[in-house]
Amino acid sequence: MTDGSTRHPDDSFHVFDTTLRDGAQREGINLTVADKLTIARHLDDFGVGFIEGGWPGANPRDTEFFARAAAELELRHAQLVAFGATRRAGGKAAEDPQLKALLDSGAPVITLVAKSHDRHVELALRTTLDENLEMVRDSVAHLKAQGRRVFIDCEHFFDGYRANREYALAVVKAAHQAGADVVVLCDTNGGMLPGGVHEIVADVLASTGARLGIHAQDDTGCAVANTLAAVDAGATHVQCTANGYGERVGNANLFPVVGALEIKYDRRVLPAGKLAEMTRISHAIAEVVNLTPSTHQPYVGVSAFAHKAGLHASAIKVDPDLYQHIDPELVGNTMRMLVSDMAGRASIELKGKELGYDLSTDRDLVGRVVAKVKELENLGYTYEAADASFELLLRDEVHGSRARFFALESWRTISEQLPDGKAGDEATVKIWAKGERMVATGEGNGPVDALDKALRAALERIYPQLAKLELVDYKVRILEGQHGTASRTRVLVESTDGVASWSTVGVADNVIAASWHALEDAYTSILLKAGLTPQD
Amino acid sequence: MTDGSTRHPDDSFHVFDTTLRDGAQREGINLTVADKLTIARHLDDFGVGFIEGGWPGANPRDTEFFARAAAELELRHAQLVAFGATRRAGGKAAEDPQLKALLDSGAPVITLVAKSHDRHVELALRTTLDENLEMVRDSVAHLKAQGRRVFIDCEHFFDGYRANREYALAVVKAAHQAGADVVVLCDTNGGMLPGGVHEIVADVLASTGARLGIHAQDDTGCAVANTLAAVDAGATHVQCTANGYGERVGNANLFPVVGALEIKYDRRVLPAGKLAEMTRISHAIAEVVNLTPSTHQPYVGVSAFAHKAGLHASAIKVDPDLYQHIDPELVGNTMRMLVSDMAGRASIELKGKELGYDLSTDRDLVGRVVAKVKELENLGYTYEAADASFELLLRDEVHGSRARFFALESWRTISEQLPDGKAGDEATVKIWAKGERMVATGEGNGPVDALDKALRAALERIYPQLAKLELVDYKVRILEGQHGTASRTRVLVESTDGVASWSTVGVADNVIAASWHALEDAYTSILLKAGLTPQD
Repeated sequence: MTDGSTRHPDDSFHVFDTTLRDGAQREGINLTVADKLTIARHLDDFGVGFIEGGWPGANPRDTEFFARAAAELELRHAQLVAFGATRRAGGKAAEDPQLKALLDSGAPVITLVAKSHDRHVELALRTTLDENLEMVRDSVAHLKAQGRRVFIDCEHFFDGYRANREYALAVVKAAHQAGADVVVLCDTNGGMLPGGVHEIVADVLASTGARLGIHAQDDTGCAVANTLAAVDAGATHVQCTANGYGERVGNANLFPVVGALEIKYDRRVLPAGKLAEMTRISHAIAEVVNLTPSTHQPYVGVSAFAHKAGLHASAIKVDPDLYQHIDPELVGNTMRMLVSDMAGRASIELKGKELGYDLSTDRDLVGRVVAKVKELENLGYTYEAADASFELLLRDEVHGSRARFFALESWRTISEQLPDGKAGDEATVKIWAKGERMVATGEGNGPVDALDKALRAALERIYPQLAKLELVDYKVRILEGQHGTASRTRVLVESTDGVASWSTVGVADNVIAASWHALEDAYTSILLKAGLTPQD
Repeated sequence: MTDGSTRHPDDSFHVFDTTLRDGAQREGINLTVADKLTIARHLDDFGVGFIEGGWPGANPRDTEFFARAAAELELRHAQLVAFGATRRAGGKAAEDPQLKALLDSGAPVITLVAKSHDRHVELALRTTLDENLEMVRDSVAHLKAQGRRVFIDCEHFFDGYRANREYALAVVKAAHQAGADVVVLCDTNGGMLPGGVHEIVADVLASTGARLGIHAQDDTGCAVANTLAAVDAGATHVQCTANGYGERVGNANLFPVVGALEIKYDRRVLPAGKLAEMTRISHAIAEVVNLTPSTHQPYVGVSAFAHKAGLHASAIKVDPDLYQHIDPELVGNTMRMLVSDMAGRASIELKGKELGYDLSTDRDLVGRVVAKVKELENLGYTYEAADASFELLLRDEVHGSRARFFALESWRTISEQLPDGKAGDEATVKIWAKGERMVATGEGNGPVDALDKALRAALERIYPQLAKLELVDYKVRILEGQHGTASRTRVLVESTDGVASWSTVGVADNVIAASWHALEDAYTSILLKAGLTPQD
């Protein structure tokens, strides 16, 4: 799908990212300056053309970001953009402290937000319609005279157009005539649908001749489609955020927008080879903002190419393209077969193949595995998210016995806060391995961490391979007792040996007991991966 | 927005829900028959016209669902739909066991899935193109002759149309001429964009005259827009799933589709008064399938009308409609102001007002609260999701002292699994309240539950109001030590007194210490809500 060239796409189409400014408005996101610098590096690595970094002068964090960006950021593809408002009503652009802060930021590109909805000019800005036009002209001309590229964000443009088309167009013309490089039409409240966006963008383009951009919020669930509708109508600048982060529902998601432009439109908007980085970069940014990556995000979600239905699995055995809209490798993602009691035999066979077991010749074995999965999923286990536990289950059925490197006698965890305010956790395990009884205690950060430390202390002498084991994630889910049973707890543990990573699951009435089961599977998995033979 | 009538929308437009069949393909969903019956009741309550319940005969669970639905479900608005495939190649519809199972289900409506992509007929179905047409005609005619309504799902229709338009149209014509009530065009692999959907649906309508439906998967992030594009082109039947559940990325989400049709198109597709139930029903279904409701879902997400930006908050003080695309009450949702260090003074004032504190006259106080929020958020606290902890923080600043009903001396939790396999948790707290020292122990399901039980045992005699307190949700987040600090744990606890519910937050190095802080705020909140005066 790529043309093999290594050049960066030219200026004729802009991929403009505003994760650091508008994306940071998302509920639950709170970025430090260090976070912002890290995200900027990821976005630059992905190859966007513009990175809007924040509003210098509006808060100390954004001012600091631009200062550190100037000193520390080496951008290879992107230009840094500072965001701010047009000058104050009744003032002069050349004397406006806020415009000065934008210039002082050193950013080569400036986005100015301007009102384009008559009611907002009067109610929120509290000035006249004419003065607002003058503020746009004056501010753009001033920044252009200082040698900056200027993009104008016309806030509430679509609502404004519907309320007063002439005035909304007058704002676009004022910005265009004063030298703005792009006039961005913003669906600030996110209420638009693609048909309306297409019609209005086409009219604005025909009526003004300005270069147009689109900034869509996702309140109708159509931000990606609205962005593409604007492109269809002639916009050549798209404003997006990584993973669709943004206020309320969010912004147009950078990844499906770029995915559609590159793959569906066959239009080069990223440097060559960068599309395949999409999944990695999406997940990396989610980690920086400390949000779990959305499993069901288009193109990049871990479920985006995961197949469960028995019907589909049968067809996928014939040809994977029958049930995928693109080859997942194009965007750095992978196809996965999910194991669940809905999956049927074909999925279990495919999953077995993925794990290195040829099950196609043993119908009974497949039947036993399907039955076992069904039985355990009824108890609250889930194998879709716990590949390593499924592999152990499968292995046990193939070998006819449970892989076991150690046997539990008992465990105990104690957490306490003392009168002096100090808190701590310790765990003790009593374990049998290779005929020896081992008793060990571990201290940790929380009871499960202590349990892991104790288990490691007990076993590391006998199994030095455990030194490489690291627990990287830990998730707890309370399964409600909706069906007349007591509530149960499911724990998922993700482990790594520094090279591969894998997930295991445990279920019990008690969170620590469930954690124990997930840890037991994690320890067993790394020892099997290291090539050891179980004791029975 | 409603016309005041109480009639159900007529048959001229179908809202068809397939949560129970296609939605259940989502990774992580595993529905019992009881779950399916509960979801069907919610969907019927919402007022969809059709509920596709599953594939009777394909698995025992779906067969049982239709049997129990016939006996137990009293649907007021919806008709139940059974799903299955056209008859086997080379067979006869009247003798097909699978079509018999569909009829035996007793469902008044049957959806038959048919291949409409030539390559799928040959590779996956392994029959001739002509025989596939005959399978469609024969199966539809047979079910119609038995008095059922028949909808045909043309699988992979859009890809098939692009590969072989004539054949795809031939399938539509065969179904239409055999008497199918609706021919549903399926974007099975979800690769379409709205422009292409509009063009193809318009051509099929003009070329065949069949009544058309749309079934869109969300792999491009455009399923809602694709569904609306099909409606724009003349489709009068939309297939959706609650919360967009479905295989891979998911299906067209019922709620934004219905929201757009009712509010943006001003088209009545639900019984009068039901639109305002949307948020409640979306969350109820998420609970049944045991997935956390998506906070950022359009219309119904808890963040869908949440405002954080200082700029927006200032304008919202003037008029909320300036920053919302619809009145959230239309869909049963509410506007929320979020408190964070980005929020600025206007948000804190609005939030204070929401909580009953008039802060507009005390600029110093607002400044102190903003500073305190900033300081604690830097330590890992988050007040956006913990209203009650924010209220305590605000109250403390207003009163100049910390609200305190009890003081901790120490706590300890012990969890253990004994050699006989039994597991258990207990906690001991030593607490001072009203001059008395209390020592109490509680047993629980997990260490935090035990700590809650112990605290309750210690305090209930002195504060009988605590009897009403119930902890309803508990969330743990590990805050990674990315910035050179040790990792910290944040716990959010949701509590209720049976009437209202509220959230509190605790942060510490240790999960149990963090839980303690969140519990302490939860206990303090209920006592303040009960009208008690703190001791200092």
